[in-house]
Amino acid sequence: MTELESFAVELSQEAARTALPFFRGDFTQENKAGPGAFDPVTEADRAAEAAIRRLIAERYPHHGVIGEEYGEDRPDAEHVWILDPIDGTRAFIAGLPLWTTLIALRREGRPTIGAVGQPYLGEVFLGGPSGARMLRNGTETPLKTRACPALSDALIATTDADIFVGADREAWTRLRAATRLARFGCDAYAYAMVAAGRIDLVAESELKVWDWSALWPLVEAAGGRVTGWDGRSPDGDGRILAVGDPALTDQALAVLKGA
Amino acid sequence: MTELESFAVELSQEAARTALPFFRGDFTQENKAGPGAFDPVTEADRAAEAAIRRLIAERYPHHGVIGEEYGEDRPDAEHVWILDPIDGTRAFIAGLPLWTTLIALRREGRPTIGAVGQPYLGEVFLGGPSGARMLRNGTETPLKTRACPALSDALIATTDADIFVGADREAWTRLRAATRLARFGCDAYAYAMVAAGRIDLVAESELKVWDWSALWPLVEAAGGRVTGWDGRSPDGDGRILAVGDPALTDQALAVLKGA
Repeated sequence: MTELESFAVELSQEAARTALPFFRGDFTQENKAGPGAFDPVTEADRAAEAAIRRLIAERYPHHGVIGEEYGEDRPDAEHVWILDPIDGTRAFIAGLPLWTTLIALRREGRPTIGAVGQPYLGEVFLGGPSGARMLRNGTETPLKTRACPALSDALIATTDADIFVGADREAWTRLRAATRLARFGCDAYAYAMVAAGRIDLVAESELKVWDWSALWPLVEAAGGRVTGWDGRSPDGDGRILAVGDPALTDQALAVLKGA
Repeated sequence: MTELESFAVELSQEAARTALPFFRGDFTQENKAGPGAFDPVTEADRAAEAAIRRLIAERYPHHGVIGEEYGEDRPDAEHVWILDPIDGTRAFIAGLPLWTTLIALRREGRPTIGAVGQPYLGEVFLGGPSGARMLRNGTETPLKTRACPALSDALIATTDADIFVGADREAWTRLRAATRLARFGCDAYAYAMVAAGRIDLVAESELKVWDWSALWPLVEAAGGRVTGWDGRSPDGDGRILAVGDPALTDQALAVLKGA
């Protein structure tokens, strides 16, 4: 593991220590969206991001940081940490242990390290220059996506099909019908299961830079591929397609076409 | 805890010991549905149910058993254990730690004890004559549903909205729109979160006797209410409505009306 990969794990563990005591406890929350919508943020999100930022400022004061809750510091630095302290705040609020802490390191414009941590499970899924692995209870398990050459055999996931509107909704419906089995409600944990060779494909829209930055190097270090729905780099319009078997990308893009 | 409540926990732990080694490992699976459909069963489902049945036969040979995988023995006995060794086989296959082991004891026609266990998390949610609690790592936490008198504040869940067809689908869509936040993909774990006071309402259809038997006493021992979509006993047509705050039942039934 490189020094910066180790530091990504350390950040993930620090966020876990900060956020976990709030899980299923009493915490304040507020709605970041206007009336009629619901975009929750809790004090756990804010405390965890503040804790990660403190560690980065101590250890690598020249690195940049972009976080969902506290904005940008030095976003043009050579190294920029991109953070979502609690991805899946809705799952967190619902008591469901599938929310994650997302930590990415962007270097010269591209994410090179991604850590997806689930504190209640004690898991950290890490992808970077030295490969992909899951850390839990002091043991490391290598991560490898699985072969799934045919879309009709694929197990696919998305967090909430109602997020898709118009042509995107139709595209999702076609994609689900073309595959074997769909699962819902996983947020970024679904990408960890792609890296672990359990889910074959994830399609989502409206992802922000702090959502896709960590899962991109994780899935690719495990052997998969991450693109936009246009087949280009994931840093486009927030519509993300992640596959375990790179043979699925073109098949899925053909089904999504028109969205 | 009564002797039979303790035994329900013991059965849950035995099922966990049997099923957990298969999770995220290699296991055989087959499709119980015909061509064009997918209803998976794995060797983990079968091994876990066989293990539970062995324990019951040793300890209470005069009790009846109804299980998803191995059918009925003495279903008219005074005490009948109703088992789903792995509820959420699709989640199990996808590597997602929200599948559960469901164990219920029916006495004189009505479920009186329910245990919902999640082996990877080491959790058992138990409801029965002596109350509702979560057991984990040797500690017990009392379970209590939360107050949520207004449907518009409710956090609701269902496993897969695409399971609803026709009027049921429209009813679900109305129900989602009437509430604050929806989560998906939880299978029986959603009912455990109702008992824990984190989710306010679950609406599902096509539940079998081994699905609803355990969650009914669990949710009610924690202060909630479980009915059919017609407001009657849950042992009807498999359409289940579980609420944490009993004030929600009538509001939700009014929205579901016509389904």
